[in-house]
Amino acid sequence: MIIDCHGHYTTAPAELEAWRKLQIAALPDPASGPKTTDLSITDDQIRASLENAQLAMQRERGTDLTIFSPRASFMAHHVGTEATSRDWSQLCNDLVHRVCQLYPDNFVGVCQLPQSPGVPPERCIAELERCVSELGMIGCNLNPDPSGGYWKEPPLTDRWWYPLYEKMVELDVPAMVHVSTSCNPCFHATGAHYINADTTAFMQFLTSDLFRDFPTLKFIIPHGGGAVPYHWGRYKGMAQDMKRPPLKELLLNNVFFDTCVYHYPGIELLAKVMPVDNILFASEMVGAVRGIDPDTGHHYDDTRRYVDQLQSLSEADRTKIFEGNARRVFGRLGNRTAREVNGG
Amino acid sequence: MIIDCHGHYTTAPAELEAWRKLQIAALPDPASGPKTTDLSITDDQIRASLENAQLAMQRERGTDLTIFSPRASFMAHHVGTEATSRDWSQLCNDLVHRVCQLYPDNFVGVCQLPQSPGVPPERCIAELERCVSELGMIGCNLNPDPSGGYWKEPPLTDRWWYPLYEKMVELDVPAMVHVSTSCNPCFHATGAHYINADTTAFMQFLTSDLFRDFPTLKFIIPHGGGAVPYHWGRYKGMAQDMKRPPLKELLLNNVFFDTCVYHYPGIELLAKVMPVDNILFASEMVGAVRGIDPDTGHHYDDTRRYVDQLQSLSEADRTKIFEGNARRVFGRLGNRTAREVNGG
Repeated sequence: MIIDCHGHYTTAPAELEAWRKLQIAALPDPASGPKTTDLSITDDQIRASLENAQLAMQRERGTDLTIFSPRASFMAHHVGTEATSRDWSQLCNDLVHRVCQLYPDNFVGVCQLPQSPGVPPERCIAELERCVSELGMIGCNLNPDPSGGYWKEPPLTDRWWYPLYEKMVELDVPAMVHVSTSCNPCFHATGAHYINADTTAFMQFLTSDLFRDFPTLKFIIPHGGGAVPYHWGRYKGMAQDMKRPPLKELLLNNVFFDTCVYHYPGIELLAKVMPVDNILFASEMVGAVRGIDPDTGHHYDDTRRYVDQLQSLSEADRTKIFEGNARRVFGRLGNRTAREVNGG
Repeated sequence: MIIDCHGHYTTAPAELEAWRKLQIAALPDPASGPKTTDLSITDDQIRASLENAQLAMQRERGTDLTIFSPRASFMAHHVGTEATSRDWSQLCNDLVHRVCQLYPDNFVGVCQLPQSPGVPPERCIAELERCVSELGMIGCNLNPDPSGGYWKEPPLTDRWWYPLYEKMVELDVPAMVHVSTSCNPCFHATGAHYINADTTAFMQFLTSDLFRDFPTLKFIIPHGGGAVPYHWGRYKGMAQDMKRPPLKELLLNNVFFDTCVYHYPGIELLAKVMPVDNILFASEMVGAVRGIDPDTGHHYDDTRRYVDQLQSLSEADRTKIFEGNARRVFGRLGNRTAREVNGG
């Protein structure tokens, strides 16, 4: 079985974006804006949005289950107020939940959090609890920079974030560290801001004792861990210079890397450098890179092909990457079927 | 011959930092601050600062020439005003010049620019001209984020920077894209900010027509290009999705990557992914990572060992990485000896 731990609902029906535009247009007078109940999307529209996209690709690529969350670039936590993010997050999470109900074998949900710049992360706990306890979701996406490219929040290792971590631990859900769009003209969103955030979060973890405080807290750093595996010697050496514990002990029980790296040499490096227990298969398909590589004839984001090519892996190790590690990191999935998680 | 294209004077005598502290202490009343002529460092002090550090390592590692610039983390362009940066840059550049005069075979100079947040880059031209024309320097370090981690300047591809680029082209000097310290608590300087800046700059270049406007302008992206080679498929695919020209045509005549990647698998990836003509040997020795890797018994930043290990390289290609590419990118070095460049 192959679990893709990183997929966003990038193909949601246009009504969702239209609703958001109305919400944004009404920011000066929120009472005049749309209600969450105003969004009208039919089951058939949801099916149509997935059948020729994520579902077709699951079939073509031979993957089974996608851990699915709202579109990352649309989270845009910098927009409006806490109430803006709360309504928008609920709407997006509910829509992902409907996807999981319609295709309970193909998708399991991960939620967007209603973060807002400067608002304490504990204010996200209610939505996290709702998504996990009521909607059967198994994780959350945590944005280390709700400002959208200006990095005004404290580092992820600051006590500012601790109440949310306490709840994550209690619920046994990991967070994928995932920024949203960039408002900073210096940072291209998917080409710089995403990758930078991955690298930034890792270095925050490296310089802190967060995992001494939360030994079971788990983070997935997406996009192959940003620059981290490529610079593994740098990080190992810096930790050593700082007299930090070895990286394995310091953070590899808590930090995991996905395989959203869109060429074989990158995946090869990841597998060479990182312990197999820390790698989770993912593609972020229908995401940042949608084309076909003329040199291979396959989609750049068809990352299964790269993992399949890794000759150094034993079959047991490949199974860890494709399935076992995801079941371990997403504790609420565990050994259950997706249908069981979805309440089917 | 082996040219290390990325070295900073990290071991400068303590008098330099003491002068800077006085300058900073006098920011509220600059007239009360130290004069540049107040800095007193003897030739023997300079020799002592290098003999057991950069020079010893050149000998031990068998490298010949270091392209040498002021300490990157000390540039701190966010401090004070344009005048603050002007005095500090002149002082640091003059000190590097003295290094090159004392060891004309071992070092060739690259200058720090007197950037200051919000000050047009053309205001750096005078110092660039002085360093190149009077001090024999062959390049500059360009900070894309003089704010120190808040990224308030326009992207490097904005016309804001063009007057400086015109001068760089006229003088035939490349810039290494190099940030300085980070004031943003989210970004560890050498562990996140440096690497993020590399990735950020590359993506700025990818999305612009800068090199159509300046076909001979050259940038070195240090630290192995940040995350770029690891995510080469991502960048290739994004350029394709955006209907940009192929990366080779779009920017590989103008953008080069150094080998400051501190483990063999990283260098192996770099050499696998990037055309050999775009890789310049560098170590940034006595820099961000100073320890010895217990797994190899050698310094993490002894990057020559990694390049030597690359069995895929022909000897001609290895010579390009070690010497030829640096002579091409640093046009003022060209086929000259270091001593000739230094006016010896």
